[in-house]
Amino acid sequence: MSRSSRRDFLTSAAAGTTAATFWIPKKVYGYSRAHVTDLKASRGVSKWDLDTPALVLDLDKLEQNIAAMRGYLAGTKVGARPHAKTHKSADIAKLQLAAGAVGICTAKLSEAETLFAEGIQKICMTTANLGKAKIQRAMNLRKKNREFIQAVDYEPNARDLSDAAKAAGVTADVVVDVAVGTRSGIPAGDQALALAQLIDKLPNLRFRGMLAYDGGAQHIKGYKARHDQSLARSQDALKTFERMKASGLNAEIFSGGGTGTYNIMTKVPGYTDVQVGSYVFMDTQYLEIGNEKGDIFTDFAPSLTVMTTVVNTYFPKRMTTDAGTKALTLNKPDPIVIGEPGFRYTAGSDEFGSIQFDTANKTYKVGDKLELINPHCDPVVNLYDVFYGVRNDKVEAVWPVTARGKSQ
Amino acid sequence: MSRSSRRDFLTSAAAGTTAATFWIPKKVYGYSRAHVTDLKASRGVSKWDLDTPALVLDLDKLEQNIAAMRGYLAGTKVGARPHAKTHKSADIAKLQLAAGAVGICTAKLSEAETLFAEGIQKICMTTANLGKAKIQRAMNLRKKNREFIQAVDYEPNARDLSDAAKAAGVTADVVVDVAVGTRSGIPAGDQALALAQLIDKLPNLRFRGMLAYDGGAQHIKGYKARHDQSLARSQDALKTFERMKASGLNAEIFSGGGTGTYNIMTKVPGYTDVQVGSYVFMDTQYLEIGNEKGDIFTDFAPSLTVMTTVVNTYFPKRMTTDAGTKALTLNKPDPIVIGEPGFRYTAGSDEFGSIQFDTANKTYKVGDKLELINPHCDPVVNLYDVFYGVRNDKVEAVWPVTARGKSQ
Repeated sequence: MSRSSRRDFLTSAAAGTTAATFWIPKKVYGYSRAHVTDLKASRGVSKWDLDTPALVLDLDKLEQNIAAMRGYLAGTKVGARPHAKTHKSADIAKLQLAAGAVGICTAKLSEAETLFAEGIQKICMTTANLGKAKIQRAMNLRKKNREFIQAVDYEPNARDLSDAAKAAGVTADVVVDVAVGTRSGIPAGDQALALAQLIDKLPNLRFRGMLAYDGGAQHIKGYKARHDQSLARSQDALKTFERMKASGLNAEIFSGGGTGTYNIMTKVPGYTDVQVGSYVFMDTQYLEIGNEKGDIFTDFAPSLTVMTTVVNTYFPKRMTTDAGTKALTLNKPDPIVIGEPGFRYTAGSDEFGSIQFDTANKTYKVGDKLELINPHCDPVVNLYDVFYGVRNDKVEAVWPVTARGKSQ
Repeated sequence: MSRSSRRDFLTSAAAGTTAATFWIPKKVYGYSRAHVTDLKASRGVSKWDLDTPALVLDLDKLEQNIAAMRGYLAGTKVGARPHAKTHKSADIAKLQLAAGAVGICTAKLSEAETLFAEGIQKICMTTANLGKAKIQRAMNLRKKNREFIQAVDYEPNARDLSDAAKAAGVTADVVVDVAVGTRSGIPAGDQALALAQLIDKLPNLRFRGMLAYDGGAQHIKGYKARHDQSLARSQDALKTFERMKASGLNAEIFSGGGTGTYNIMTKVPGYTDVQVGSYVFMDTQYLEIGNEKGDIFTDFAPSLTVMTTVVNTYFPKRMTTDAGTKALTLNKPDPIVIGEPGFRYTAGSDEFGSIQFDTANKTYKVGDKLELINPHCDPVVNLYDVFYGVRNDKVEAVWPVTARGKSQ
């Protein structure tokens, strides 16, 4: 979308009026008190008074987004299996499960271990566990958690898993990860079918179905292009899934899709659930993709922002803030300063944000705060230890980023 | 430099033969045992057997780099005040101080607090503390640590600091941060001099000198261009420093420079120390800047690498690994695969690295490990909880990234 239309949108985004809202759950106060690290010091504090850079989560918008997804999917045969790689938060995973999610996904074993330790059981890991030590850890997790499912996309790995499951005295639940594109997963068709059949025969594995996540489809700009391309690209996976079913396999899971295709993949016959992640937070990347109504993706509200402080105003038509790469990543499009559509923010310096502008809505001085829409929620969240959960701009909860840094 | 010359360099980089080495300190075994988190499980393990992604630090190369810097500076009148924003590690700060550093720098107050808690006292914070709460924290730190110096670049902030110091019953040591460029600091000349004079008069501040860090100069490619431009750009700061001295101020510190200009800023009259950071680790950004001998910066050895695992080999002329944006950042130039000069690695996906190639030196299969030179050490280190310190590829120490995530 054009820079100006995105800017125009933001004033309303800041006012919280843009999310498609189906129902708003009863407000629950401090649902994660056990996890709070510095809530005592922060409760009731305005987000504008937090030390910066701070990761702020508008709880009303978060709940709106979860409700919007639930509301949309309720009219389909498809469920939500939200991806926790986005939020890495046990608190948010619990809200999603309470809102009817069939489970959550994790990208890494260490995420699964950490979230399980915080009480999350229905976990589907979307990548494979490779190597003896990691496979053994996966089986240890499976022993403790009967609802742990892991992905496989490689025949020797399936055999290793079965051997390790046998040694651990368990039958491990697995899904085949089928490639859509060339990044991850086994190619659709004969190879994927053969792997599924092997898994079905291996003594200590239980075949549960397949994953087919199309990472490249999520950010295709324009709803129609995204719709047509993602459905076309899903055809090989669909045919593979139908062959698995036809061959008598227990193909109970057919999972994929993301925030960009949550209302498209529901049209794929047999699809069971979407691995939506970013819908809870939104970011500048997703704002750009557009929806059925226009070139801004307004289906969900930007709930996740970063507070920053102006640290330098000496130089004309530019300012410096305290939120650079270590607070915002280098993802594009750049962060957006809420309320200042003329500001061009770059986070290219490690420690500093740079703002350039021709005009500003108000005069800023050193120490003033700004609120930013983050560029790409997944890696931004991974930089912080806590979310400051706010309602009406006041801190109500401080949630740990439970699996922060769990990249293994 | 050209891609191919960088590639040629890497084979030797991997062999550890490139650092200018003046003396190698006696090897110290496990100098940070108190901080070790999982050393018991990891000691003696080959870096090739670590779970991935893993941040690996070659201790021999680290020590070579620290020794090389010490050796060079020993022939000058300039000291080292290494910047801990790069490593965020109390262990490495201690090695630097043991090697004669006059102190360390931090970019943020939370870094200073965290490192002080681990026993580091000589800390100069290179940015200002803004806002009542943060200033009070800074004074609490000053109360406990007489060697804490903080930067100021704004008159109202100097007054706030003096008031808070008075309330805390201390005299706070401050330096004026003078701008080189338009990102941070007070403009050189009259404004900076006036601020220094104000500080000198304020009852509870002690003026110590000035900082003049030229962030933009560090990565200018080609030694001569970097030399000439950085010296030219330092002239206004130098004149300001001389005016401070001439006006009778206690201008005992004149600090700036970085890894790219460590052997250039020593030519600025009156310079007291260089705020070198990346020299301990190196990265693809610094490899590119060149030195007096050629277009590759070989003054220091790449000691910091990321181990990754091949997770997908199904598709021709490409592979996928488990180290993406969350393990490597999006900084450019891209990570380099040691030993495979033909590999083009991109970390553009959050969870996956993508390698494209025409030819490979050997055949890789799923589960194989690769070692990467990181693109930009500061934000990469900030993604990890620990460094695996290795000698001869075996783990000898596990050091926490003490101030990881301390962006406030």
